[in-house]
Amino acid sequence: MSALSEGLTQILIPLASLVGIGFAVLQWFLVSRVKLSSQDSSNGYKQKLIESDEEEEGINNLEISIKCTEIQHAISVGATSFLFTEYKYLGIFMCVFGAIIFLFLGSVKGFSTKSEPCTYSQGNTCKPALANAIFSTIAFLLGALTSVLSGYLGMKIATYANARTTLEARKGVGKAFITAFRSGAVMGFLLAANGLLVLYVSINLFKLYYGDDWEGLYESITGYGLGGSSMALFGRVGGGIYTKAADVGADLVGKVERNIPEDDPRNPAVIADNVGDNVGDIAGMGSDLFGSYAESSCAALFVASISSFGISHEFTAMSYPLLISSMGIVVCLITTLFATDLFEIKKVSDIEPSLKRQLLISTVLMTAGIAVVSFFALPSEFTLFNFGTEKEVKNWHLFFCVAIGLWAGLIIGYTTEYYTSNAYSPVQDVADACRTGAATNVIFGLALGYKSVIIPIFAIAIAIYVSFSLAAMYGIAVAALGMLSTIATGLAIDAYGPISDNAGGIAEMTGMSHKIRERTDALDAAGNTTAAIGKGFAIGSAALVSLALFGAYVSRAGIKTVDVLTPKAFIGLIIGAMLPYWFSAMTMKSVGSAALKMVEEVRRQFNTIPGLMEGRVKPDYANCVKISTDASLREMIPPGALVMLTPLIVGILFGVETLAGVLAGALVSGVQVAISASNTGGAWDNAKKYIEAGVSEHAKSLGPKGSECHKAAVIGDTIGDPLKDTSGPSLNILIKLMAVESLVFAPFFAAHGGFLFKFI
Amino acid sequence: MSALSEGLTQILIPLASLVGIGFAVLQWFLVSRVKLSSQDSSNGYKQKLIESDEEEEGINNLEISIKCTEIQHAISVGATSFLFTEYKYLGIFMCVFGAIIFLFLGSVKGFSTKSEPCTYSQGNTCKPALANAIFSTIAFLLGALTSVLSGYLGMKIATYANARTTLEARKGVGKAFITAFRSGAVMGFLLAANGLLVLYVSINLFKLYYGDDWEGLYESITGYGLGGSSMALFGRVGGGIYTKAADVGADLVGKVERNIPEDDPRNPAVIADNVGDNVGDIAGMGSDLFGSYAESSCAALFVASISSFGISHEFTAMSYPLLISSMGIVVCLITTLFATDLFEIKKVSDIEPSLKRQLLISTVLMTAGIAVVSFFALPSEFTLFNFGTEKEVKNWHLFFCVAIGLWAGLIIGYTTEYYTSNAYSPVQDVADACRTGAATNVIFGLALGYKSVIIPIFAIAIAIYVSFSLAAMYGIAVAALGMLSTIATGLAIDAYGPISDNAGGIAEMTGMSHKIRERTDALDAAGNTTAAIGKGFAIGSAALVSLALFGAYVSRAGIKTVDVLTPKAFIGLIIGAMLPYWFSAMTMKSVGSAALKMVEEVRRQFNTIPGLMEGRVKPDYANCVKISTDASLREMIPPGALVMLTPLIVGILFGVETLAGVLAGALVSGVQVAISASNTGGAWDNAKKYIEAGVSEHAKSLGPKGSECHKAAVIGDTIGDPLKDTSGPSLNILIKLMAVESLVFAPFFAAHGGFLFKFI
Repeated sequence: MSALSEGLTQILIPLASLVGIGFAVLQWFLVSRVKLSSQDSSNGYKQKLIESDEEEEGINNLEISIKCTEIQHAISVGATSFLFTEYKYLGIFMCVFGAIIFLFLGSVKGFSTKSEPCTYSQGNTCKPALANAIFSTIAFLLGALTSVLSGYLGMKIATYANARTTLEARKGVGKAFITAFRSGAVMGFLLAANGLLVLYVSINLFKLYYGDDWEGLYESITGYGLGGSSMALFGRVGGGIYTKAADVGADLVGKVERNIPEDDPRNPAVIADNVGDNVGDIAGMGSDLFGSYAESSCAALFVASISSFGISHEFTAMSYPLLISSMGIVVCLITTLFATDLFEIKKVSDIEPSLKRQLLISTVLMTAGIAVVSFFALPSEFTLFNFGTEKEVKNWHLFFCVAIGLWAGLIIGYTTEYYTSNAYSPVQDVADACRTGAATNVIFGLALGYKSVIIPIFAIAIAIYVSFSLAAMYGIAVAALGMLSTIATGLAIDAYGPISDNAGGIAEMTGMSHKIRERTDALDAAGNTTAAIGKGFAIGSAALVSLALFGAYVSRAGIKTVDVLTPKAFIGLIIGAMLPYWFSAMTMKSVGSAALKMVEEVRRQFNTIPGLMEGRVKPDYANCVKISTDASLREMIPPGALVMLTPLIVGILFGVETLAGVLAGALVSGVQVAISASNTGGAWDNAKKYIEAGVSEHAKSLGPKGSECHKAAVIGDTIGDPLKDTSGPSLNILIKLMAVESLVFAPFFAAHGGFLFKFI
Repeated sequence: MSALSEGLTQILIPLASLVGIGFAVLQWFLVSRVKLSSQDSSNGYKQKLIESDEEEEGINNLEISIKCTEIQHAISVGATSFLFTEYKYLGIFMCVFGAIIFLFLGSVKGFSTKSEPCTYSQGNTCKPALANAIFSTIAFLLGALTSVLSGYLGMKIATYANARTTLEARKGVGKAFITAFRSGAVMGFLLAANGLLVLYVSINLFKLYYGDDWEGLYESITGYGLGGSSMALFGRVGGGIYTKAADVGADLVGKVERNIPEDDPRNPAVIADNVGDNVGDIAGMGSDLFGSYAESSCAALFVASISSFGISHEFTAMSYPLLISSMGIVVCLITTLFATDLFEIKKVSDIEPSLKRQLLISTVLMTAGIAVVSFFALPSEFTLFNFGTEKEVKNWHLFFCVAIGLWAGLIIGYTTEYYTSNAYSPVQDVADACRTGAATNVIFGLALGYKSVIIPIFAIAIAIYVSFSLAAMYGIAVAALGMLSTIATGLAIDAYGPISDNAGGIAEMTGMSHKIRERTDALDAAGNTTAAIGKGFAIGSAALVSLALFGAYVSRAGIKTVDVLTPKAFIGLIIGAMLPYWFSAMTMKSVGSAALKMVEEVRRQFNTIPGLMEGRVKPDYANCVKISTDASLREMIPPGALVMLTPLIVGILFGVETLAGVLAGALVSGVQVAISASNTGGAWDNAKKYIEAGVSEHAKSLGPKGSECHKAAVIGDTIGDPLKDTSGPSLNILIKLMAVESLVFAPFFAAHGGFLFKFI
């Protein structure tokens, strides 16, 4: 029996969620004290946006404030309108896919309304199959809605914070940092607490019907993960295409052809670019990490429900995954105080160490937190189900499983930092390769990305081996949860990046002085690295989550072994390993084509609007926003369909073994493609920033902006954009989503799958 | 019983080899009728190489002929000296690794000299373990020597033919084509026939000792494949680094900075570049395909030796793989006549169809050939060993296995052609993306490479499924053999490419007219596509071969299942999938660094040698040759060590299950990386050629040479160089070699492996 009583567990989990939400609200309140001008002057904006290049900070405060408000407003309106359009499509998808879930799962036992004997908890009766189909569908819709809400809230916060960060940058880099970071924290805590709370409430509500049938209860709950992840897929892909079409298009004409600075208000694609940061990097990423979190919780809960404490209905032990997440919120809360209150950022070089320290502090504190939860929440000994056999596990085994996931995450984070930060030699070597032109820059960058895969893969492999050996698939699931336990901090430092990026854009557009722009650039450079770290976490946790889901799928589909030596499994493996390439080809081509259209539009405006280059006339921002919106909505469908349909087609035509092969293949190959794409892109971006900043002698010898080296670096940066912000981060959703979808549909495939092989 | 008697088999195989060799000699004789000037004028050369830009074809014939001879001589000397230096290193490696094989295999049973009971052929006694260790070592050395010889002969032929092709180009494109193609055929037939003959003779010699112990005999013979492939690895990697360092270095300074044409004699790296084509694309590729051929034969023979006809000692049935290869030589001989005698190339646009027709003709004829061999050489029914169970197989099952491999090869070839030839939309889209600069060119090129993976993977998957279902691992092995059965034709059209490339270089260097250069360029453009097709074959066959070797390894290591659901196998899988990235990172970085050095040297010469740009002074070619040589010899060691040591380390520390996972992971991930890298590179190269040639309206709108679009295309081409000629083609050796090495060392790992896990 657990030391922690069921009653206390029922109090602690919602309490932690509410503390998290309260903390988020507090941070929001602190950010909101930075006042923007509320004066409505949309007419004034139109004329004033362009003219004043010479203003100094402090002077004409009200006007700058008004301008900031205006631009912020424009970005916010653009982002909101895109998300609402996107959500309309997603709403249709949700209804259709919800119906598919209901029909497929319901049809397994002919929509039977009769209670049935339980599979694992022998001698008891479980709820009818129809109930499972209904509740899986409800869980799917809940997960989807929570995911959409997470993305939307993140976007709202980010667009609320960007102009405030710009304004604070006038007072110094420290003030700006705190504003950006607090805003990131709002998003981090809101998402983590919200995800936990919805899951907790759903479980308790589902229990009202399911009662003692925990098998059915936690089987249905897996729909929550599927809902979360499928929204994340479209969010990441759609947002990723949106942001990179705008970014690439803006850069190619503005920076390369016209030689005007980034975020210059004369560039017609500049508003689309800034909107993109919010819908892609913020909303997409929020949905993504929420999806990972929901899936790892669901995978852990599902596996736990068929363990000894699941069958004997020990609620506290069952809630171990939720308690870990609750502890995570508390730990992250303390960690945040280190950044916002205990230490102060005084100069630019303090920024990156401060963000890195966040990772380390949260990991160290969380390790103690895991120990506490493991000893109080779990019985000292229990048995787990391991593909047909039983496994004896002790509570400290699970401590090690969660902790190794957590520390593997830290290693992945630090490795990513090493390969993408311009403080270290890898990025400096890439920058140096720009001496001989864009080609060597690209060759070195690709090689860097490939190389950066090595350590994370070893970290993941060790985490898998240890947690698998100690606690079978449950070990893997909680290791994934361990990596995600500090999600609030991870999201905070991750969201901080695009907010700073936007802040820089607003500073440029309002024509603030170079000093301000330098400050926001410094924030942004650190943000590139943290964004890469965030992606590293997302990918690492996705690998563990998918493996856990894969294990759960295999259990639920009744497969005993996935033997590479059988042709069914092997062809699954090799085709699965191909899917990340197919998917990347689609998303990269989409970005490329959309960017070409954007380039043509931007060129057209520069060529046909007289006075645009001189800054006398405002460009037609709306047209560029429209191009990005249309492209992303149209182009997100084929890759989305690839991911959503593959498990269904393979399961139905080729059966559960081939599908198991596909999942394993996509997992082991997708992780590599995702890590290398994301780090290559981050490295190119920071190599460019390294040359631009010109801090060291070496950097100065490559620069300044506009030099041949810098031009070569800009080409690398542009190539990296779709890699790091569209293909790379979408791939981790591909592997997770196919796994969770297979898990949800497993009973159907086991009953009716493998049509083609049966036919032959 | 087979319809074909043992006696006849013993005649047919060597006869086919001798016919192949005879045909190669005949082709050589035909090529040699193109006379070069034998006059020694190395002094004359030095002065004359540069001056005459204005000469017309036909005029001053002797002088041009002398120049050609001189340049050919310089290239040949450079290539020979590089290969001999490389072989010195490889000689040391062969001795060391031979000793390792002997010690490791000998130690399994304590260097026992006692005869032992056979494993499969129950009741009989087999030869002592020590004998197997000795004969495996001998087979390894034989394979290594044959591989080295194949590469060397290929290089000799190519350097013999390049100047002759240039001279023939004066008479028309058809004459030049035939010379280049015949020379390719010399290499193709020599390699195919030689590989078959050495293997056949070795088996017969080994049989003198082994007598009735066929288990031991064919187990030892697997060393032949290991020897062939390990030399191929160093050949491909070393040669690949050599050629691309020179090529990238020459292009970056010559074409991009100095705006002088490709292969201009003023460029100091031009001789190194031409030498590189011969040591990388010719010698490396020759060794590579020989390795594939040797491995698939060995894998098939090993699996066959434990089948029912192996145990009952039916020599004809056992020799089925060798008979397929013999038939292949005859079929390819007929196929070659279609290109050289039955059809005539009259204009440039005839070239590519003629080469494509070769593939189709050989495939169709070979299908009939396979049917003949299958019906005459195999008993109508027999049993195969399938991981502990037995499988009933009919002779027409095997016909389907070989034929599906053959046709899968054709599909891969045609797909590769579609994605890399500038006659189709994919490459034209990439060329079109150059409008917006190098970045979009690279994005589209990468997307093209990813996309080009899809169809080949489905073709491979179907071939695997069918052949595995029909005849287990033996089916896979003979499917690989089927894909390679037309190797002589494949090599001929593949070797044709670098020969034409060199011919173009010689035309440029001797200052021949534009007309000649246009003819050689047309030959070369078709050569880029056939090179990509050759790589497609190499990769596809490598996938099948490795799977067959993997199956043989699993049998020999006594593993019953490779279950992805065990932590040991899974971590193997994910780490294996990482290896191609690690390997590519190494090789690409090597090319990048060596190219940087080359760039500096070329720049130095242009800056410090007065009169070089004006063509008054000869550059210091030797220094550039030295840089390429040093770089490739130094840099081939780390990637070589990665591939050679991984199976040993994993096998010894983690045991046979993890090693099985590593092999499967490397296979399914490596295939994707290899295909995409090779096709991306080919597409960029031909996108550039498309713009340069300016045949269509569309192409003209992008060109001409020197336009912004063309510059962007050159950047893509340069990035593609290490992808298509170093990393990509080396990866298929990585996956084959690790598999064959594991197979050879399997008894050792099974006895003493898994040290680390035993310890924990």
